[in-house]
Amino acid sequence: MNADKIPDIIIGRLPIYLRALQRLADQGIHNTSSQELGEMIGISAAQIRKDISQFGEFGKQGTGYSIPFLIERLQGILKVNRVWDVIVVGAGDIGHALARYNGFVNRGFQVAMVFDSDPNKVGQKVNDLEILGMDTMVEKVKQNKIKIAMLTVPASAAQTVAEQLVKAGVKAILNYAPIHLNVPKDVKVQHIDPATHLQRMTYYL
Amino acid sequence: MNADKIPDIIIGRLPIYLRALQRLADQGIHNTSSQELGEMIGISAAQIRKDISQFGEFGKQGTGYSIPFLIERLQGILKVNRVWDVIVVGAGDIGHALARYNGFVNRGFQVAMVFDSDPNKVGQKVNDLEILGMDTMVEKVKQNKIKIAMLTVPASAAQTVAEQLVKAGVKAILNYAPIHLNVPKDVKVQHIDPATHLQRMTYYL
Repeated sequence: MNADKIPDIIIGRLPIYLRALQRLADQGIHNTSSQELGEMIGISAAQIRKDISQFGEFGKQGTGYSIPFLIERLQGILKVNRVWDVIVVGAGDIGHALARYNGFVNRGFQVAMVFDSDPNKVGQKVNDLEILGMDTMVEKVKQNKIKIAMLTVPASAAQTVAEQLVKAGVKAILNYAPIHLNVPKDVKVQHIDPATHLQRMTYYL
Repeated sequence: MNADKIPDIIIGRLPIYLRALQRLADQGIHNTSSQELGEMIGISAAQIRKDISQFGEFGKQGTGYSIPFLIERLQGILKVNRVWDVIVVGAGDIGHALARYNGFVNRGFQVAMVFDSDPNKVGQKVNDLEILGMDTMVEKVKQNKIKIAMLTVPASAAQTVAEQLVKAGVKAILNYAPIHLNVPKDVKVQHIDPATHLQRMTYYL
């Protein structure tokens, strides 16, 4: 296994496999096959076998995959066999939704802090978290060695805030602002923009 | 131009180009180049030129692209030179955030209806929209010829609701439930799942 050489497109499918396997495990199922998994997620069995085999031998011909074992290995590969502290920057509607979302913790994440620049929001609570002033963000991120941020500020502020996050040591940004972020190569960005996703589908209507 | 033959990966980049061009237009800029656009969005100038040339001749060697013209053409290609009615199914935190989001209308979409199955939510308002009962969804979607839905119900309900949407004539689903949807091939699905996006980045940490 040479992790550096695994194409990003394969890495992108692993969380999908993991999610489906966790769903099966929640139903009390212990074994699955690439066929069954493929039908669940709309990816061919051959593709799944090929992707997973990049990381070693996981299944046996004929008996399929042990779900607990494959979950453990995928969690290890994706480094979510631990819980990462994540910050939410921007306490608007989406920021609140993310801070209150209960689907993170069993997938390796917890919202540790929420920041906003609006003095009227600072000090208010989202769940058990007090909204913190943006002026304290760099210091708090550094202190707590936070590596992951979800960015839900307006597009006009996003690039500036992203640069502050990078300066503070953040290496992964989930960007909800409808703008591309320019960050150094060692910082990963994933974009969530519903209008972009919708436009990708209207082409086919 | 043979639209049916354009690879989906190219279609996926067009909304990114359109978003960047609209941003330049908002700043009062009338012309751009593939170099400038590429720097804005982190895609090579050559890739942008190649993608755009799939749809005809848009720019002139040396003078670049006319922004209003390219916006108009991309909006036409993506069929967002109109405003599509979209429904939100599930009036939780994310459903509320989507219904209240003001970034849709200048990108071709407006939230026309919001549905929920909870009798305590039905009749309440999100912005100017009254939350409607899920039992009226199929009928209302058919009546209003809605083609696009944003699905924010729990994972356990998502497949059933998706099947109702398909039955009602929906052809594009933006799925916020953390589960793969099985739908007919002529129905497009895009997935937004923050934990999946985060896991794709932790691999590199």
